[in-house]
Order: sequence, then C-alpha cells, then structure tokens
Amino acid sequence: MDAQMTDTETLGVVGGGQLGRMLAEAAAPLGVEVVVLDPTPNCPASPVARDQIVGEFTDEEAVRELAARSDYLTYEIELADPDLLETVEAEYGVPVNPDPGTLRTIQDKLVQNQTLAEAGVPVPEFRRVDDRADLEAALDEFGYPVMLKAREGGYDGRGNVPVEDETDVDEALAEIDADGVHAVVEEFVDFEREVSVIGVEGTDESATFPLGENVHREEILRETVVPARTDDAVAERAGEVAEDVLDLLSGRGVYGIEMFETSEGEILVNEIAPRPHNSGHYTIEGALTSQFEQHARAVTGRPLGATDLRSPVASANLLGGGEERRPADHSGDDAVLSHPDASLHWYGKHEVYPLRKMGHLTVVGGRDSRDDDVDDLLRTARDLRDEVTFE
Amino acid sequence: MDAQMTDTETLGVVGGGQLGRMLAEAAAPLGVEVVVLDPTPNCPASPVARDQIVGEFTDEEAVRELAARSDYLTYEIELADPDLLETVEAEYGVPVNPDPGTLRTIQDKLVQNQTLAEAGVPVPEFRRVDDRADLEAALDEFGYPVMLKAREGGYDGRGNVPVEDETDVDEALAEIDADGVHAVVEEFVDFEREVSVIGVEGTDESATFPLGENVHREEILRETVVPARTDDAVAERAGEVAEDVLDLLSGRGVYGIEMFETSEGEILVNEIAPRPHNSGHYTIEGALTSQFEQHARAVTGRPLGATDLRSPVASANLLGGGEERRPADHSGDDAVLSHPDASLHWYGKHEVYPLRKMGHLTVVGGRDSRDDDVDDLLRTARDLRDEVTFE
Repeated sequence: MDAQMTDTETLGVVGGGQLGRMLAEAAAPLGVEVVVLDPTPNCPASPVARDQIVGEFTDEEAVRELAARSDYLTYEIELADPDLLETVEAEYGVPVNPDPGTLRTIQDKLVQNQTLAEAGVPVPEFRRVDDRADLEAALDEFGYPVMLKAREGGYDGRGNVPVEDETDVDEALAEIDADGVHAVVEEFVDFEREVSVIGVEGTDESATFPLGENVHREEILRETVVPARTDDAVAERAGEVAEDVLDLLSGRGVYGIEMFETSEGEILVNEIAPRPHNSGHYTIEGALTSQFEQHARAVTGRPLGATDLRSPVASANLLGGGEERRPADHSGDDAVLSHPDASLHWYGKHEVYPLRKMGHLTVVGGRDSRDDDVDDLLRTARDLRDEVTFE
Repeated sequence: MDAQMTDTETLGVVGGGQLGRMLAEAAAPLGVEVVVLDPTPNCPASPVARDQIVGEFTDEEAVRELAARSDYLTYEIELADPDLLETVEAEYGVPVNPDPGTLRTIQDKLVQNQTLAEAGVPVPEFRRVDDRADLEAALDEFGYPVMLKAREGGYDGRGNVPVEDETDVDEALAEIDADGVHAVVEEFVDFEREVSVIGVEGTDESATFPLGENVHREEILRETVVPARTDDAVAERAGEVAEDVLDLLSGRGVYGIEMFETSEGEILVNEIAPRPHNSGHYTIEGALTSQFEQHARAVTGRPLGATDLRSPVASANLLGGGEERRPADHSGDDAVLSHPDASLHWYGKHEVYPLRKMGHLTVVGGRDSRDDDVDDLLRTARDLRDEVTFE
C-alpha cells in the first residue's frame, strides 16, 4: 500500500467463492476495493478482487493479514471463525459485520432456532438431539417424518437428513456424527412453498427486498421467482417476519432469510444466512440495488439503496452435471446470451462436479410488450438453463 | 497460468483507466478475465482486473507480454499502437478488435474525416492544414469561426482549438504543433444539439443503442440524456448514419459515434471512438445490456445482447474541481447513494485535478409512478452531481 492508496477503502472478505466474486463486482463502483481470504488458489473472486490471501477461513495468521489490510471486514461463508473475527476486530480496530456474535448464533442450528423462538419469531417445532434417546423422544412427539440436522457445518443441504420411518433412524444418526450426536430435530413442515426474503441492516435503517419463491431439488436451490406466487397477506407477513429477524440479529449487512409458507398460509423461518444468498441473485438485474451492492454499502457504513423490483424476474442456477470432478468445460451459453431478456453469470470455477454451483442466469420481464408472468419467466429460465451443458 | 486455468478466457486490454475498469466489471459475469496494460501503477482498472502489466501503451515488450497472456486483445484508449497490435496479432495468433487498421484511421482526424466522407457518411466540411497558408485558405472559404484540430493525439478536447477571428490564428497554429502543423480545419457547425450513438459490431450482427443527447462544456462531456430530446426522424437518421459507420469500419467491438444535429435537423458525424464511450455510461443501468458487456461480448466472439432502454435515463460526470493536483478526497456521495433512482460509479482514481473524470452517476426513470421526463431526470442528475465535492 503506497501513500496514493489512502483514499481508497478496502473491504476484507473471509471467503472468495461466487458470493465474494459478485460482491467484488458490486463494490468497485462504490469505490471500494475487495481483498478475499480463501484456501483455493485462483478462487472465483480472485480475478475481480484486488488480492487474494490464500489461507484457510479460520487460519489466524491469514485472518490477521486480512484485517491489517482492510478498513472493514465481512464474510461470505458461515465457516468463518467468530472468535477470531472478534479478536482481530478488537486488535486492529476494523469493524466486522454482521457481528461475529450473530455468526456464532447462526452457525449452531439449535442456537439459531432457540434465539428465534425466544424472540417470538415463528420457527418449526424443534428439539435438541444429543443421543438416540433424544431423537426417539422427538419422534414419539412429532411422529414421522422429521428432519434431523447437524447443529454445525451444514451447507447446501449437507448435514440435513430426512427421517421418513424407523428404518432411517440408525443411518441418520450415523450420518450426523460418528463420534457423538450434536443435532437438532425439526417437525416435518407440510409447506405450500419455500420462500425467502433478502433483508439488509444498515446504519439506523433497514430494508427488505420483495418475497421470492424458491424451488429446491435434492436440497439444492434450483430456481427463484419474484414476486412469489402467493397472496399479498402472506407476502406481507413474510416481510414482517424478516424485519423481526433483522431487529433481532446484530450487525450491518445482508441476510438471506429462508422461510416455509405452510398449507395454512403461516410463515415459519427455516434458516438464516448472515450474507448475500443464492435466492437473492435475481436482485442484480431484477431490483434497483443488488444484494451485493447492498452488502457492500451496509458493511462499509454507506446508505442503503432502494429495494424495489425493476420487474418480475426468475433466476436459475447452473449446476454441474455429469458424474465426476473434471475441468469446467461448458457449452450452450450462446442461447442464454442471445436471449434479450436473459443475463448470464459465470463464477469462474475451473472444475465442475455434480450439483456444483457453476453460475446462474436471470430472466427479467415487464418490459414493453414483453411477458410479465412469472410462470412464463420461470419456464424461459428453465429452458435456457437446460441449454447449458458441461460436456 | 496453471493447468486449471485452461477453461478461463482472458481478454487483454491496452489501457486501464475507467473504461478498462468498467469493462472488467462487465466481463467477469461472462466468465472472461481481464488483464490490463497501463503505465500508471494501481491504475483504475487494476483492482478488478486479474492483473495489470505496468508499461506504456506502446511498449513493445509489454504489449507482447499482454498478447502472450491473452486469448483476445482490445484497447480502451486511442493511444495504442496499431502497428504493434498488428504485429502481435500475427505473431501470437491473438485476435485484436476493433481492427488495428480502424484504430489507425481514427487516430488521424484528417484520415478519419476523409474515410467517412469518401463513404458518403456526412461530416462537417474540412480541409487539410499543413501550414499557415492552408489555414488561411480554409478561412477564406469557410469564414470565421472554424475549429482547428491536431490530426493526432487529441483527447477530451485537447488538441481542438477554436479560431474565432484573425487574432486567434497565431496562437491556434502554435498550440497545434510547434514543429510543423499537422492539422485539419473544420467549418463551424451551427448545431442544435450534440448527440451520439453507441454502436456495436459483433460476429455477423450489429446493433445500436438509442440516440443519446450530450451536454459539453469546455469540450468535456458533462451530461447525457437518453432518449435525446429531438424528433423521431432525426433519431432515426442518426441511427442510420451510425449503422453506416459500423459497416464502414472493420473489427468487432463497441464504437462511440459523436454527431451534431444541425439547426436544419441534419446529422453530421463529429468524431468516432473505437471503444466504449463516456456518452454510453448510461447503458449500465439504463439499457438491457451495458456498452461494456457488449464490448466484452463482441471482442470475444460472443453473441450481442439487447440494446433496448430500460427506461429514460440521465447521466452526469463527476469531474475534479479545485485548482491543483491533490489526493482524491471527496464528500457528498451519500446524497447520490440515498437517492432511490441514482447509481454511483467511482473510478478509483487516487488523485484529483480540475476536470479529471473521477466517476459518474446515473438517474433512471420510468418506474411505477416515478418521473419519466428526461428534463426532470437531468435536473436530478445535476443536483446530485453538485452535492459531490472534492474538498
């Protein structure tokens, strides 16, 4: 850093995957440079970041180096170490957002549920599971099926094991933890649809984006459509719940708040991510301010932007196909690029494997005579997604 | 470059100013990495580029290094060397776009005018000026005032000297060239407004963005509003002229085509830039595909995107104020960030001086009940611009 650099602000980011990449793309126009910490050399964020520090997310020396180079710190992955972030925040005087304490709460799914439930935020019924007896007691109470979740380390459905009947119990317990069970079990929610709100907490202000509707398969997000195809009362209720969550959790930044809409139209919070979220990628083209720009604004103490939709919108993940890990060849993106309503986002990953998030596409409607119907937008997004292959 | 990188395409860019910066921001979602060549360490593009090669735009070794690292080459400044680009194109087999020959044509304002005039593209009357006698002959023919332009090296109005009456002649000749005059003189155009079309030449396709209207002061672009406040026939004519220019010049990429609309509603081409242009910055938020994404698509052989406006739009440059070169402090951008219709783009420049392009802002209209009137959008853009200071 030379003397010329004193005017430029640097945001240090623990994690340099696609979220860090899109955060760096969005931070530059604000005049904010990004440095990422990631263990994988040439991580997805590295081509658009000022620098990558190569190191584990929890490596003390690497996190100290990141703090020393940064004016602000944030994280784009829940595997960051809240204790270490608190330490460097105090030692280097670099504000960390969202609060490391919030990260700690969210990292433990039992504590997350307890915190939400105690504050009156609706969540599915849940019980702590430390051993087989705990699970059996919960099964007596809830009946089958239930969802058994590892308290820590889950990501993209990993660590979440459905228990459909008694023959699943042994395998589920084994899958959660070989050395002792640290889990939470949740009642089965007969949901009408999965929805999410991207919320953002700023300095003395907060905002929420419109309700999105998410389609998962194999516990991986496939598509999001916005606005969600539900009634206004449900959307309003979901927005209120999201605002309660923002009030409850401390620290500035974007939060991805995943919820179930039950068959009775109730909203239950499923999981919270203290960072930009896959279900908010549509905001890049679909909203007045993207979730990534909002996160950069929030964690650097800038005012928040407007969260209005530009138009109805659908997005679809481009997930790795095939059967094995191999170089990231792909074809078929010309179809996406040639479609007037579609935008493409590759994440710059050098290898592909089944269900790996390689990129996403977004289809926006509402322009002139073009179609505004989210069913049609979703159909277009799926058709274009299916054109892209990794062979 | 390790074996993992073989799947990632690299675009080498001669020049790493704000155009290179916004090009790198736009290329990343396409899966294209950018390497820039620029003589200034920590140039504006460097934080969002994979790498910066520090060297002069015309440095043979540096341009060879850029070519060796790139799958495609382009330039974001007319000071690139067309001969050297042709050499490395042949030696390294790296396609250079737009064609170096086009750059050569455009670099010489006399040749540019001759090329356009010979093809039937309307331009102001012009004469070659090699000495004082040539200028005096042109003044006899055109009368006062005229515009004397250095044939090479002009940029942002530098090298353009108005000659209002005979007392200006000596100074104008001296300003153009101390060692011998290489200039072109143009008749004074009594223009109604200055307009421009951003055009893009792709592979077997081309496209033009809607007509923009530009406000200059001291020969520097201040604001652009789109659509231009002129009648449909003029806008249509300007689009046709732009298409003729695209047909005439070879090489894929974005071209900024500046034109005069005369008081009689005629269109005359003033100057062409073989690259994204300041008057096209509005496309980032205002059009379906930005000029920077179009340039990245075009020069890498990808399909072009749609050029429709999202809504009426105004943009304003954030130009350095004050009197001397100094560190780039600024304040007042909270007003821009807090306005729901405004977007901010800082260029990451570390020093400010009078009239230096430090950033720009864009105000988009046409949303819900919001205002769609370009006069109002322009007023908002100017008001927000005036909030930003460099003190």
